[in-house]
Formats: sequence, structure tokens, C-alpha cells
Amino acid sequence: MSIKVGLVGTGTVGGGCIDIIQKHAEDFKRHYGIDLELAQVCSREPEQAEAHGVADIFTLDYMDIVNNPEIDVVIELIGGTRVAKDVVEKALQAGKNVVTANKALMATCGEELMDLAKAQGKDILFEASVGGGIPIIGPLKNQLISNEINNVMGIVNGTTNYMLTRISQGLSYDESLREAQAKGFAEADPTADVDGFDAAAKIAILASIAFNSRVVMDDVFTEGIRGITPLDLEAADSLGYCVKLLAIARRSSKGVDVRVHPTMLPKEHQLASVNGVDNAIFVVGDAVGETMFYGPGAGAGPAASAVMGDVLELARRLTLGVGPIVGCTCTDDLPISPKENLKTRYYVRFNVADRPGVLAAMTAVFAQHNVSVHSVMQRGTTCQENDTVNVIYITHVAKESDMQAVLADIAALEGVLYGEPALIRVER
Amino acid sequence: MSIKVGLVGTGTVGGGCIDIIQKHAEDFKRHYGIDLELAQVCSREPEQAEAHGVADIFTLDYMDIVNNPEIDVVIELIGGTRVAKDVVEKALQAGKNVVTANKALMATCGEELMDLAKAQGKDILFEASVGGGIPIIGPLKNQLISNEINNVMGIVNGTTNYMLTRISQGLSYDESLREAQAKGFAEADPTADVDGFDAAAKIAILASIAFNSRVVMDDVFTEGIRGITPLDLEAADSLGYCVKLLAIARRSSKGVDVRVHPTMLPKEHQLASVNGVDNAIFVVGDAVGETMFYGPGAGAGPAASAVMGDVLELARRLTLGVGPIVGCTCTDDLPISPKENLKTRYYVRFNVADRPGVLAAMTAVFAQHNVSVHSVMQRGTTCQENDTVNVIYITHVAKESDMQAVLADIAALEGVLYGEPALIRVER
Repeated sequence: MSIKVGLVGTGTVGGGCIDIIQKHAEDFKRHYGIDLELAQVCSREPEQAEAHGVADIFTLDYMDIVNNPEIDVVIELIGGTRVAKDVVEKALQAGKNVVTANKALMATCGEELMDLAKAQGKDILFEASVGGGIPIIGPLKNQLISNEINNVMGIVNGTTNYMLTRISQGLSYDESLREAQAKGFAEADPTADVDGFDAAAKIAILASIAFNSRVVMDDVFTEGIRGITPLDLEAADSLGYCVKLLAIARRSSKGVDVRVHPTMLPKEHQLASVNGVDNAIFVVGDAVGETMFYGPGAGAGPAASAVMGDVLELARRLTLGVGPIVGCTCTDDLPISPKENLKTRYYVRFNVADRPGVLAAMTAVFAQHNVSVHSVMQRGTTCQENDTVNVIYITHVAKESDMQAVLADIAALEGVLYGEPALIRVER
Repeated sequence: MSIKVGLVGTGTVGGGCIDIIQKHAEDFKRHYGIDLELAQVCSREPEQAEAHGVADIFTLDYMDIVNNPEIDVVIELIGGTRVAKDVVEKALQAGKNVVTANKALMATCGEELMDLAKAQGKDILFEASVGGGIPIIGPLKNQLISNEINNVMGIVNGTTNYMLTRISQGLSYDESLREAQAKGFAEADPTADVDGFDAAAKIAILASIAFNSRVVMDDVFTEGIRGITPLDLEAADSLGYCVKLLAIARRSSKGVDVRVHPTMLPKEHQLASVNGVDNAIFVVGDAVGETMFYGPGAGAGPAASAVMGDVLELARRLTLGVGPIVGCTCTDDLPISPKENLKTRYYVRFNVADRPGVLAAMTAVFAQHNVSVHSVMQRGTTCQENDTVNVIYITHVAKESDMQAVLADIAALEGVLYGEPALIRVER
């Protein structure tokens, strides 16, 4: 019995999937008794299909795949949440199983799509949506389910991790972005990566599974890396820290705290040594303790490995005539902790006028809002151009709302602040 | 529908399983629709059952569990390969599914037991047999199956990793062993750990799954850590290396190279920072590239997390009326590369008579067997007691059989060698 697959999207990841099927179809038969056939391929770019030698099964219209009665599994790899959603919905409605790598789609419409799949008696699998090739959704939904998991934390965006690695080596933000784009690690429009939205979608998915409670992208307090300068990374380094764009999800009796922001981590931390485009995800369970999953977070091979893992899982079950087994496990409805209640330590750098009284006035604002200062330092020399200087505060643990009040009041001090302050939260 | 579990063995891991069921049975119902009931518990030690509050379902005879028609899943946690094998066989023959953490059993009788399970239409799952709480068998059998995997390597024995960490901090081998025993990391009889047999069983299991070809414990070339001294770890350190007991499995066109031995690794290597009782496993696939799985390799909570993950997987399927899905995937029959064909670099330390001509005679032996020497150094001062000195050779890549010939010939040099040489293979 052959399992027929329809592929929608022939970009990097889609190409990787075609490669795997062409290379290993015989192995899948021999090892797993899975007879997989790539039956139809859809893309807006026929030349991509031709380049992969699948011009004979090519179509420009995804409805051809949706309406193809032979197709058992549809792979959605076009990205975005508009057309992709239509592909996934139509495929499920037509009685196909679906595999997608689309984090934005799953982090915004996950509940709706999983409900639809359930109503149709079909599956929607999405291992590739988080961590590229790293198996993480599978372990969370299977091997680790005897744990109560209260903590998931990781580096889940390779683009920004690459950029931060390069900024720490002396490049400016703009230089690091251009380099990432030149190497194909960043899109022409880098917003989803550098503003943290990609990571926010991923941590929403991980939190939903780990905590058995739906978390959507809009629930995630998200800050990107646009404000990060080599100066901040140098200062962090001299204090024994590195800076990573961390995605953090924590559960407490008060609810779910879920966020993405640049974070200072002690250099000894396991995540500190994750450089370049690699991803790493920490999962802490009440029985297992701390586990970490590490590997390439993006790229044709890694993402296709995860997509094809899902396709083979479906194919294995379809071959045996077995329907969905796991499905949605968001059975609880935990509240999302408001951002204001976050308590952490802060690094904050202000570019301020270099004149007497400024430091005293600023430091008074911290005291006024009960934000206890651990240390203050001046970095670099006075900027000749506008007579400003960089002042860095490290705080003790403080409440986010108090810290935001400090920032607002310092911004309101007359003639003190130049530009936006750089704020980095500190984890131990 | 309640799934009834029988537990054989109430030691550390068995106790951990009872704890998880008692703590989370309600969660399993709510999140996964799994109604799990611990129906019967067997042990040679009734007081362990009493301590866990399960005296009312206790039996001294595992045949009571085997013959209990209500029980769906039997957990075998008594260890060893004699009684444990009988428990597993009898349980499968009685139509039960089995979960075991028994690496020695699976690495010696895995094929026989999986064949029996298949014939009975039942499952035998063994996630906890490798890497403690780290999900590794699940990812290899599911999320990563679209890859051709040619390389699995890791630190899979927490006891020896703890001891090597402590020896590198200055303890002697005996001191590190006594400390590991005092902390409960090493057994009274430490043979399985320190001689590498535990790691050999684990890499046999991983290689079998990763390469789709049966590897048994006897196939694994195994050397333990008994010969390792603080002097060797110091020398390695000064050369930019650390020493780990690595389990290595590689597939090439010539067959499967599978072994366990102390290994010098560059300090920058990801595995170099895995200290104490932690485990870490590297998997390299042709699509995914390098992935690493990290976490606690032993202990009540971690091992029980893995055992109960398997139990819940079975329970989920039994609840849906679904039989085995994956089973044995050893469909190929790859040859095992003979140890003699291994090619690697070597660190070898000789304790030799401190007199003229010795160094020249030894170095001539290396040349005679075509083992090219990268560097020679003398470590420490002459031992006053017996007028000996330590001479360390680092070789270029050489053949194992040539290196063994060197060792034999140097041992035969009259009045030169004192004690056994310390041999450590070097990986880059």
C-alpha cells in the first residue's frame, strides 16, 4: 500500500523534502515498510519544481492537490497565515492529513486547525515549526508526558542568534543583518526574526504543549534585538554575561509567564555556548529534571528532516490503518501573567547628557520607583559630537511595571536622554 | 477504560514510577484521557512497597503479576539478564505489553524479545535503557527516521563521567570510586560501570536503532577507566583535551564500528562540558546534521520519567484499541568492523626505567610498526622508589593492530616497562 504525498511549496524546505524522498524512498520501504510516493507538487515557481526533477507532477494550483482523491498527506510549506491557512483547512476538509512547518499559523490558528483535524478524524503535525531539525514537539508529546513541566526556555531563532554572535565579535547591528541576509540566514524583510515574532510563535507552541494550556502568539510579551549594540555586548561580556534572544515560558500558581527578549545569561550557562544559527531548548520536568535539545534551527536539511519525520509517522499509521493518536492536549485554561508582574533583574543603558547632576537625577528616579540599583557604570568616553555619555545600570530583582515607570520618568527629565535606552533582562 | 499496570522491582527507579503515578494519575486522565492504575507491585523487599504505600497490592511472586488477567502492562525494573528475562518473556507470553529499563537485557536478548513481542502482537518498550531521562530512543525511532544516520556518539554512563570529572580535579581513581559509591552513583560492585559494560550495552542499543542493523553487547569493543590516573588527565589538559568515557558508533561502507573507551576530546567539543552524572548523546543525520540530546543520565526521577513515558504511550494506544506501531527496525545485517581495523590517534603513557637508551629503544618500536609519532614528552620527575619515569607518546592516525603490536613489543623490551601502559584514543 503506497502512501501518496502532495507538497505545497517548493522553496528551501520543500526542496529538502523532495531530496529526502528521492534519496531514501527505498530505505523507508525496507526499514519501516513505508511505501511513500510524492504524487503531486504545487508552487508558484515552476522552475523550482523543474530543478528538483518533479516537473511531471507539478501544478500551479494547490486545489489540484486538495482535490486529488489519491493523496493521503498534504505538506504545507508556503509560510504566512493567509494562503497557508486556506491550504491546510481545505486539505483537512478534503480528508487529508496535514504536515506543516508553519509556526505563525500554528501559533495563531492552532486551536481552530486542530479542532478541524479532530472533527475530520485526521492529523495535523508540526514538528518542524519549532527548532528546525531538533526533535522537540515529539519528545514533549510523548517521552516526557509523565512530567509536570514548569519551565521551557531556549534559543529558537537562528537568524538573531547568528547576528548576536557576530555583534559580539564587533559588527554593528546593520552589518550583522546584512551579513545574515547575504548568507541566506535572514529574509529581505527581517521583521519576523529581528523583532522576535518568529521566536514568539515558537515559544507559544512549546508552552501550549508543555503546560497543556493554549498559548497564542499575542500572549507572548515580545521584544527583538534592534536596540542591541556592540557596546552592550561588550559591557555584558565584562560582567561575565553573554546576550541571547531567549524565548522563555514558565508556569507558576499565578499562571503562565511567556516572553521573548534579549537576555543576559551567565557565560557558564549551557545556552551561552550556543552560537551561530544553532538552536537549543531547555525543558525542566518535575521527574526528569533539566534536559536540553540542541541542533541546527533552520536550513533545508534540518527542517525537511522534521517535516519528513512527521510524514513518515503519518504514513506508518496510515499503512496500518490507524487514525490519530495524540491530537491537541491543551485541556487546561491557565491565565497568562501580565507583563507588568514580571520580576527580574535589568541591565539598562542610557545615552545621556554629560553634565553635572544628571547621574544624581537619574539615580533618584530608580529610588523613587523602588528599583534597587546593584551597580552603575559609565562606558566609553564622552561623545564629542553631542556631549553625551553612556550610563549603565544593573538592578536587583525589580517589577517590570516599576522598571517601565523608571524609563518613562527618565525620558521625561529635561535635556537628559538621547535616543532610546537599551534594556536587557538578566537571567541567572 | 482503565489501563492496569504491574510493577516488578521497587528499587530506585521502581519507587520513582510509583511516585509519578501517585502524583499525576489525575493529570494523565485530564490531559490525555489515560486512566492509569497501578494494579500490582512485586519485589523481594516488602518494606520498599510499604514505604511507598502500596503494601495492599504487593506480592513476592512475579508470576502473580504475569498471571493476573487484569494487567495490561508489565514494568520490569529488577535488572540483570536472568530473572529479568524470565519476567519479560512470561509477561509477553501471557499477552502483556512490557516496559523495561534493562539495557543489558535489551543489548543481549533484544532480538529474541522483540520477535516474541511481535509474535504475540504486543510491544516491548525500553526508552529508559539509554540516557536515563533523556528522550533518545523515541526521537531515533520517530522524528529522525527520514535521515540516514552514520554517527552516534555520547557520554552514556553517569558513574564514570562523575569519576573522571573528580579525577580531573585531583582525586585518585580509588578515591573517586569511593566518593561515587558514597553518593549512590556507583554500585558496591562497580564492574558494569567502570569496565564500560553499561556503556557498551547502551551504544549497542543506539547503534541497532540508528543503523537499522542489530548490534549486540558482544559486538562492542569495550575498555573501561580503571587505568586512568590524575597524571593522564593533567597531561590531556595541558594538551587542550579532556578525557571522557565515550560510546561511539559509526557506519561506513565497510560496516559498523562500535566501541566504548576513554577518549581524549578537544576542550571546545560540545561533549567536553558534560560533567558529573549528566549524559549527552550526539546524533548526526544526513538531513538534520548534528543534534545533541542532554540531561540527567540516571536517578529515580529521570529513569522513571522515561519508563512512565513508555507506559503512557502504551496506555494511550490501548485506550484507543491500537496495537504495536513501530517494533523492531533492524532490517539490515551490516558487518561489525573488527577492532584491529580501527584507525585513530593515540595517547599512550609508559612508566619506564629511567636510564639511557630506553627512549630510543621504545621510539624505534613505534617506527618499526609504522606508527608515526606526533610528540613525545616526559611527565613528572623520576620516581625515586624504583627509578622510573613516565613517557607519553601522542601518535598520528594509526591502525589499532599496529598500535597493539607496539604495546606488545615495548612490553617485551627487557627491564623497560613498569606496570600497564595507559592508552587513550584521541578524537577530534
